[in-house]
Amino acid sequence: MTPPAFHRARRPEHKQQRREAILAAARTLAVRSGVRAVTLGDVARTVGLAKSNVVRYFGTREAIYLELAGEEWQGWTHAAAARIGGGTDVATALAETLEARPLLCDLLGHITTTLEHNASVAAARTFKQAMHASYDELGERIVAARPELTPQEAAELILVASVMGHTLYAIGRPPATMLALYAMEPELAAASCFPFVPTLRRLLDALADGLPRRRATGPE
Amino acid sequence: MTPPAFHRARRPEHKQQRREAILAAARTLAVRSGVRAVTLGDVARTVGLAKSNVVRYFGTREAIYLELAGEEWQGWTHAAAARIGGGTDVATALAETLEARPLLCDLLGHITTTLEHNASVAAARTFKQAMHASYDELGERIVAARPELTPQEAAELILVASVMGHTLYAIGRPPATMLALYAMEPELAAASCFPFVPTLRRLLDALADGLPRRRATGPE
Repeated sequence: MTPPAFHRARRPEHKQQRREAILAAARTLAVRSGVRAVTLGDVARTVGLAKSNVVRYFGTREAIYLELAGEEWQGWTHAAAARIGGGTDVATALAETLEARPLLCDLLGHITTTLEHNASVAAARTFKQAMHASYDELGERIVAARPELTPQEAAELILVASVMGHTLYAIGRPPATMLALYAMEPELAAASCFPFVPTLRRLLDALADGLPRRRATGPE
Repeated sequence: MTPPAFHRARRPEHKQQRREAILAAARTLAVRSGVRAVTLGDVARTVGLAKSNVVRYFGTREAIYLELAGEEWQGWTHAAAARIGGGTDVATALAETLEARPLLCDLLGHITTTLEHNASVAAARTFKQAMHASYDELGERIVAARPELTPQEAAELILVASVMGHTLYAIGRPPATMLALYAMEPELAAASCFPFVPTLRRLLDALADGLPRRRATGPE
């Protein structure tokens, strides 16, 4: 598709349309090359706008990706809550819905190291509020399915799922240097192998089992 | 201390001395400003060498930090193994020795997103071999203390400790944007609060408890 030839957007619906076009371009580029590789210039070129114009809408490259991270996070938590509501066990639902979202896994690896460092307070607020609202929603669904868990323990399960998920994703997609190394030293590759869904599901299952038991034995 | 005025290092002990000076400068700068903020130029200036000279020794900024990550990782696993050998429970030993190493926590957040992407295969090999050797050593100590765990489960405990550790470290040190947001929205700050040692210890304890129980109930 040829990028639309945008002129200055004056009406609110045009501004919204332009924001969406920028987000869509950033998403396409990140899916193709990884979040790390995409520059603001790449996004501007893809959407057919001047860099200064993209900056006017989002401020920074990181603010664009923080907004996508918020969208992807909500998509994940809604999907996981729906799976749990449909009877899938909590660990399987969290692991499988996360595996289905490689862009979210990629984005999660950049939030605390990059994205949160270079976005406006307004962008950070939108992101954090969306994240916490869906934490609560998914947490309630987890507690409904496993009433032995407290809301705090459900929040910890979501935290561990997302953090271990993006790490297992990154481990499973080594960069060129690591691929070259693994080709020469297969035993290093084998030692670095933690398959995504089985590993994550087992960790989350063990955690969901262990957290209430630990509490039941009393405070340390 | 004034940086030593280095001339061309020809003898092996001088080359080694220069490598160590570069690593020490990179360490000092990262402790002061965070790994993310340090450039190769900063390291060269601090050690009193031309940038091209630092490149001759390490290739890239990321290779310097990958080597420091290997050193710090070994320091952590040795300390944790010693604490476990001295009778401290596994979860407490892993969490407290990691909390005592903020530079390692910072470095761990950059390994898969940055450091492994821009280092030579030789640097990656040194790092991975050091990491796996100490994984095995610490894993054996964990299994000796908790014989109900398999070596694979001990490796998973180490993985979760390091990954959740660097994440809790990052959550606990929000960048300027997030601090400004939390000052305005205290309830977002409260929802993002996972205190380092209590959270990590509880997660690891629950995991060490849940992993063998889950296995005992048979495969799914």
